[in-house]
Amino acid sequence: MLEPAGVLPQQAERLDASPVCGADEVVVDVSRLNLDAASYRQLRERHGVGGVRRAVLDIVAARGKMQNPVTGSGGMLLGTVREVGPRSPSGLRVGDRIASLVSLTLTPLRITDGLAGWDGRDEQVPCEGTAVLFGRSIAAVLPRDLPEGLALSVLDVCGAPALTDRVVRRRSAASVLVLGGGGKSGSLSLAAARRAGASRLVALVPTDREAAAVRASGLADEVVVADARDPLAVAAAVGERVEVTVVCVDVAGCEHGAVLATADGGVVVFFSMATSFAAAALGAEGLAADVEMLIGNGYVPGHAEFALGLLRGEPAVRALFEDRQTQRA
Amino acid sequence: MLEPAGVLPQQAERLDASPVCGADEVVVDVSRLNLDAASYRQLRERHGVGGVRRAVLDIVAARGKMQNPVTGSGGMLLGTVREVGPRSPSGLRVGDRIASLVSLTLTPLRITDGLAGWDGRDEQVPCEGTAVLFGRSIAAVLPRDLPEGLALSVLDVCGAPALTDRVVRRRSAASVLVLGGGGKSGSLSLAAARRAGASRLVALVPTDREAAAVRASGLADEVVVADARDPLAVAAAVGERVEVTVVCVDVAGCEHGAVLATADGGVVVFFSMATSFAAAALGAEGLAADVEMLIGNGYVPGHAEFALGLLRGEPAVRALFEDRQTQRA
Repeated sequence: MLEPAGVLPQQAERLDASPVCGADEVVVDVSRLNLDAASYRQLRERHGVGGVRRAVLDIVAARGKMQNPVTGSGGMLLGTVREVGPRSPSGLRVGDRIASLVSLTLTPLRITDGLAGWDGRDEQVPCEGTAVLFGRSIAAVLPRDLPEGLALSVLDVCGAPALTDRVVRRRSAASVLVLGGGGKSGSLSLAAARRAGASRLVALVPTDREAAAVRASGLADEVVVADARDPLAVAAAVGERVEVTVVCVDVAGCEHGAVLATADGGVVVFFSMATSFAAAALGAEGLAADVEMLIGNGYVPGHAEFALGLLRGEPAVRALFEDRQTQRA
Repeated sequence: MLEPAGVLPQQAERLDASPVCGADEVVVDVSRLNLDAASYRQLRERHGVGGVRRAVLDIVAARGKMQNPVTGSGGMLLGTVREVGPRSPSGLRVGDRIASLVSLTLTPLRITDGLAGWDGRDEQVPCEGTAVLFGRSIAAVLPRDLPEGLALSVLDVCGAPALTDRVVRRRSAASVLVLGGGGKSGSLSLAAARRAGASRLVALVPTDREAAAVRASGLADEVVVADARDPLAVAAAVGERVEVTVVCVDVAGCEHGAVLATADGGVVVFFSMATSFAAAALGAEGLAADVEMLIGNGYVPGHAEFALGLLRGEPAVRALFEDRQTQRA
């Protein structure tokens, strides 16, 4: 941490991004960044497709890491291990192709190619540069049976299905709503909830087109179309309230709809990095809603293998992921 | 809601604060506001003691409610019921002295005395004006056996001990850490954790003076002094990690210390309105910390009576509350 002193890297304003390998660290040659969806959306809306490259370069140059100052979020990276410190607990070897499973917001990053290969149209950013993983940072060796871009997309959101699985099983929840059920974390969370035993799965999506895709996938029992930012519309679309709601949309203002759609005694899991702590806390209080609200921790033990297993085992999930990639290509 | 359309009052930019009583509503003659601690602190630091009155008046005039645009938080109010709509589910009667148990961030409020009686030195604001409570809003009739200021202080934070009780009981947690254990929500949470069966209670406070007061109270088994914003200092001060951490400080940047002090499989409950969703979510992920993180919902059924009961039954809690009031008088 260069400044301020005394905080952990995620909170730091600026990191030392020199590709020097500490005793318990790993240095990575970066080949791609996967920006957090909320962060990419904010940058694109603020700077336009033509301006996002400059915006990302400026942030990384100023902070030594990719942390969007508005959303506070980052993303993850893909690369090849260049150097492993003698006391690294990572188990990684030089030459391993890996994805980082810790946020870019705490990962020292240096970009050396000016992001020349990125057209700004997609949150997956071809990139040459270096990054440093700490002793406590975790990374996944990329599976050999999946295309790298696909694996990266899955690993980017692998905390969501793992925590959904845990919450649904712990509560033996029968009904689960996923806001943004057609997206990456949303479709994986639907599949996880199904495997965990839920018998009424509701996917809420923003458009008829997305609704058709999710219906065709069979991942949900009910697919409804509503603006997740409109609490009364969400409640009306969902109908009978659910035991567990999982928020997987990348726009702000979805807290109250999630609370209204959840039955007393139920749980809301917020995975969107656009979630406002105050809006959730005060909104639930203001509605006298007795719901438990979880901050979606991106780390659950075994989350990477769990998410990759869902992708391999659920053709519908894989089809949605590949469809997203095709639309962008 | 005057703007924007389609959101609930808490999210609205501006509310209609006219003291007109809808069929299921209640109109209140306000006598005092209790600003959220994080909000008051931010306003005082930004505007100084001499400027906070103007700042609050400007916010309420512009928004029709007291919602600090920086922290997103509000507070609560004390007043007398002026009018009860014919379909109000509140059970309130004209003339009842009440405290609102929903946030000021969603309560239509009009101030008519220019806050002339407030010197800005305290988050309790003498105030003449009117407020409207909605059908879903809840309020507590003030108990006759406690001074109003004391009751208001307790009701302001009554969600914290109720949720602490629930979390500790559900997990049969033996060890509980309260960051800010000397404050209002902190001391109540310590007392709640004790009653719920915890056998190792750790209070972390910022100063030796506060440590002495908490030690004298006997509310905690261990009292440690550290800056809650310094994660490594928090972890070192706490020593063996705890099963449940309750965050009751009103400053930003306490997320990582709370995570580091909590054992794998444990729970962090964030009550501070200064909590950053992104810092919590990404911080835990970055540390590969398998902790459950709860957004402190200010509503738990029975929370007001539970907190007042703790105050009545625990002389040490009452002494800390009264000491705070004396220091300010």
